[in-house]
Order: sequence, then structure tokens, then C-alpha cells
Amino acid sequence: MEERYLEDLKAGDKFRSGTYEVTELDIVEFARQFDPQPFHLDLDAARRSVFGGLAASGWHTAAMSMRLFVTSGLHLAGGSIGLGVDELRWPRPVRPGDILELECEIMEVRPSRSKPDRGVIRISNVTRNQKGEIVQSFTASVLVRRRTVT
Amino acid sequence: MEERYLEDLKAGDKFRSGTYEVTELDIVEFARQFDPQPFHLDLDAARRSVFGGLAASGWHTAAMSMRLFVTSGLHLAGGSIGLGVDELRWPRPVRPGDILELECEIMEVRPSRSKPDRGVIRISNVTRNQKGEIVQSFTASVLVRRRTVT
Repeated sequence: MEERYLEDLKAGDKFRSGTYEVTELDIVEFARQFDPQPFHLDLDAARRSVFGGLAASGWHTAAMSMRLFVTSGLHLAGGSIGLGVDELRWPRPVRPGDILELECEIMEVRPSRSKPDRGVIRISNVTRNQKGEIVQSFTASVLVRRRTVT
Repeated sequence: MEERYLEDLKAGDKFRSGTYEVTELDIVEFARQFDPQPFHLDLDAARRSVFGGLAASGWHTAAMSMRLFVTSGLHLAGGSIGLGVDELRWPRPVRPGDILELECEIMEVRPSRSKPDRGVIRISNVTRNQKGEIVQSFTASVLVRRRTVT
């Protein structure tokens, strides 16, 4: 797949990723390592919790969405280097068996003033489950290479 | 360790976590699963990249910081349920051998108007390496239980 440089991108461009199927084992394994709370680890405890059933850690949802971005998203030249993330929300939990898909929209393309070989894009990232429900959204600033040094 | 309810928390309270040592294997394993880019996976490619050496995925830094929060942070009653995250920044990369530590400060404590059994706190989370350099910062809104239902 061809890599994209700053010149290839403009505000309003949209990209859709492939899909990622979430298993119960994935949810529990991630939680064991990084977010060991009962509602991410144990079916019974999760049923009694505010989630009403096993739910992925929000940081797991973020990590799975990053995988979708890197493997089937924008394919930025030099890699996807995030400078910052804002308004990260998890409006619905991710459940075992969910199939996730990411949609990105470019909101702004800004060449660097001081460094002619690069620029920054601002993108909106929305992750949906198989029912089309939003499970995560955020905006990010990402470093992007320029093809032509001016 | 005692669990904390909304009534136990006030703006200005600070908490410091235990520590988390980051290995090269950790960085590569996380990247393989969730952020398979050369500068997170391969020493030589990382040296030639903008990072100048192997660097953890920002989402890995977020996940390790969550582990510190859950295992040695605030100990919120009913668990740590994040409603949203803002101003997530990674000012410096996390490297193999780094020892991470999290500091949280409560910025705001707000009882729910409609639901008397809960409230929301706003916290500032800062992760530092063993040199005291900030590797991640963000603010988060977190759901917290109230002890006394009024």
C-alpha cells in the first residue's frame, strides 16, 4: 500500500479501516496486564458491576483502535507518530464478540513553519462495533512527512 | 487497602503510585499486538527513526500508567471507571529500562445532581520516568461512588 505524505491529505478526507474481532480471552489478558479490575477480568463480578457484563478496558479499546489505524488506516509516510490526543471518550463498553472498525476524518492539515520537511494533521477517530454503535472517539494531532521540501 | 468514596476526596489531594519497570520485551510485545510500527519493534529501525532508539507506543505508556493507577493509585470504591480523557500528551518517549511512576492530583469533586449514589472527580495524571521527566500527562473524569446516599 502506498504511503501518504502531507501533500496527499486534505481536510474532509475520510478513511475506513479493516475490522478487529474482540474475544473474551483478549479482554481478560489485557486487563490482567494493565487494568486488573473485576469487571474486566471475571464474568460474575462483571455481571454485578455497573457494566452488567464483561467489558474491555477503555485503554484496550484504544490499543485495538491503534492496531486498526496502523494496519489498515492512513498509512502515513514515516509512521504514525501521535503528538497528543483530546476528547477521548468511551460512550459504550466493548464486549466479547464485538467486531470493531475505525473511521478517521482529517480535520486540518498544517505544514510546519519552522521545519519544511514535516507538518501536523488533526484527525477525528471513531471506533464502532458491528451494530454501528460508537464505542470510542477522540481527536489526535499526528506528525506527517512532507514529500517536497520547499 | 481501604477503598475511597466521593466523600473521602477533595480538590488538591495528591496520590503517588508504586513503580513499573519497562523492559525491551514489554515494548516489542505490546507493539506487535497493537502498534506494529518499526520504531516500536526493531532496534535498528528505531535508531534510524525520529525517536533515535526503541520507544514504547504511547498507548502502551497509557496502559502501564493505568496499571499503576489501579494497583497502587486511588483505590476508588467500586473500581476506576473512566468517563473520558482530555489533553493526553506524550512529551518524551518511554525507553527500555525506564522505571515509571504515576502522580494523580484531584482537580474537582462533583456529586451527581440526578443520582445520589455517585459523583464524578476530575483528576490530573502525570507519569514520570526514573529521571523525573514527564513521559505522559492527561486529565480524566472518573465515576466515584458516594458512601452516604442523601
